[in-house]
Amino acid sequence: MNTTAYRRFSLDEAVDWVKHLCESKGCSPAVANSLAHATVAAQARGNQAVGFRHLADYLPGFSSGRIHPRVEPRICRAGAIIFKSDAQGGIAQLGVDRCFDSLCHAAHVNGMATLSQCNSFTSGELGDYTLRFAQAGLIALAVANGPALVAVPGARGKTYSTNPISFAAPSADGVPLLFDQACSATAFVNIAHAASTGSGIPEGWAVDQYGNGTRDALAALSGALLPFGGQRGANLMLMVEVLAAGLTGANWSLDAPAFNQGGQSPGCGLLILLLAPTYFSEGFEQRLANQMVRLTQMGVHRPGWERQQATVNAQNDGIRISVDLLEQLSRL
Amino acid sequence: MNTTAYRRFSLDEAVDWVKHLCESKGCSPAVANSLAHATVAAQARGNQAVGFRHLADYLPGFSSGRIHPRVEPRICRAGAIIFKSDAQGGIAQLGVDRCFDSLCHAAHVNGMATLSQCNSFTSGELGDYTLRFAQAGLIALAVANGPALVAVPGARGKTYSTNPISFAAPSADGVPLLFDQACSATAFVNIAHAASTGSGIPEGWAVDQYGNGTRDALAALSGALLPFGGQRGANLMLMVEVLAAGLTGANWSLDAPAFNQGGQSPGCGLLILLLAPTYFSEGFEQRLANQMVRLTQMGVHRPGWERQQATVNAQNDGIRISVDLLEQLSRL
Repeated sequence: MNTTAYRRFSLDEAVDWVKHLCESKGCSPAVANSLAHATVAAQARGNQAVGFRHLADYLPGFSSGRIHPRVEPRICRAGAIIFKSDAQGGIAQLGVDRCFDSLCHAAHVNGMATLSQCNSFTSGELGDYTLRFAQAGLIALAVANGPALVAVPGARGKTYSTNPISFAAPSADGVPLLFDQACSATAFVNIAHAASTGSGIPEGWAVDQYGNGTRDALAALSGALLPFGGQRGANLMLMVEVLAAGLTGANWSLDAPAFNQGGQSPGCGLLILLLAPTYFSEGFEQRLANQMVRLTQMGVHRPGWERQQATVNAQNDGIRISVDLLEQLSRL
Repeated sequence: MNTTAYRRFSLDEAVDWVKHLCESKGCSPAVANSLAHATVAAQARGNQAVGFRHLADYLPGFSSGRIHPRVEPRICRAGAIIFKSDAQGGIAQLGVDRCFDSLCHAAHVNGMATLSQCNSFTSGELGDYTLRFAQAGLIALAVANGPALVAVPGARGKTYSTNPISFAAPSADGVPLLFDQACSATAFVNIAHAASTGSGIPEGWAVDQYGNGTRDALAALSGALLPFGGQRGANLMLMVEVLAAGLTGANWSLDAPAFNQGGQSPGCGLLILLLAPTYFSEGFEQRLANQMVRLTQMGVHRPGWERQQATVNAQNDGIRISVDLLEQLSRL
């Protein structure tokens, strides 16, 4: 019997470890830096599915050509408040990083701004983007698409990606409100992880290849995910698809090449809307902080709170990654 | 036994009928006109809950002071793209109507614009607003709040309104994509209607006053609605609350006076975000039309399609309202 062994990193050490790993796969310093910061931040928040584990999708992606390891996003502005990024087959994170300061400035000066990005690998953790904008005093709403994985009830075949929505808002208590959730009943990585560990999955997550509900993760992998919340969830998925693919000019989920095989970029889309609260009402951040006290006292779950606590813990104590995973990543 | 009798109106006749009814309750011509157009449009789309039936909430509201019948919204701009309306205790529709042309112009000139409104009666049919902006070539996302009616699983008491989300996007085939859905498992009006007709309600819609699930509409009326889709739906409700109340300066749902009793305005909030597709990618409307053909051929429900058909039918054949409802409204 094995017991799991872990290696502990400080956050800076973890960033350096991922950077070197990425550079060893041919990544430019800029690509390696963007991906390493996003990966370690997700891991520090306890969002393991898009932390180190997600590197198992990126590293073979760089080698196979599904992700261009050195490309710079092509960025342009359409007027004062619309920023457009063509990721040109590279990672999603670099385009956001390249525009971040200008976007914040544009939103603070005009009240709103938007980043519209096409042609990237899958968008990673949307909550990483929205949280950073909230930390800069902005309300952020982000949506993204990717290869089709979800079957809408009543329709044939897979039509949408998990089409996640993330929302973050700054609060005077220093902990932004933050959620980041798929419009599918679960994220694809959770099915893949269950399949790799031989676990079952809850009812309502997925259908098998014949369109029948299944609790078998392997059967779900050859089937499709389901939306959360029935027709309402399916409508939200379509909204995300229209904003993240239709508006940005990215591939529709139906047309996106796979993110985990082949040599083509999935060509995903990402849209981030920013609102500057000071343009709308005075004292927004204090008012939100007060309201969150009332709601949590009533027992309402405050999304983002645990992730903030996890980040503080990770800043103090570092993060623990299983040696098996580190070895697996090093071998990829 | 009674058989139901109906009166048929052309759309213009119906607007005139509602205008006169509103004016008889003390409404200014502007208030009567805005409410009449919104009501008849909802009825023509087949959205009965916010059509003529909803006048049973408005008319006593005007008499009781819950809705100011003659007030003009106070409108100001914060820069080029942010429009703010203080409805001052009046209806929600007039503020949107007063800003509509300027909002369209600002969005087409800058790529984005927003209307932020506080202090109104409940917002009526959000789909009426988003559809009109889509017909003007814009993508529109609208959210609204109101008095607390929904209990979030795990929390004590009601914390949110049904907190609806509406989305509309223009398509080259002339039929905008359009949905307008509560973040609760159903709309409050559907519970109230079931209670008034003695019908049961489906499981998952509501809890009774003790927090237990119920299929009895009367028990649900003294209990609370539930969100759709569990924690994901509850998170969306919180997002709507932050945007529609936090950002606009409207009452939090927790603090909003009832919309159906007392003499105080519920002081609701409404936020409408507008995006001009031409700023983002070429040929958006044609691309969306093509994609909707593919999706509907796969069996995906196209939201907004039936409502467009219903409107065309209503334009040709008029609308039918039960004589009982007309008499009830006339007596209010």
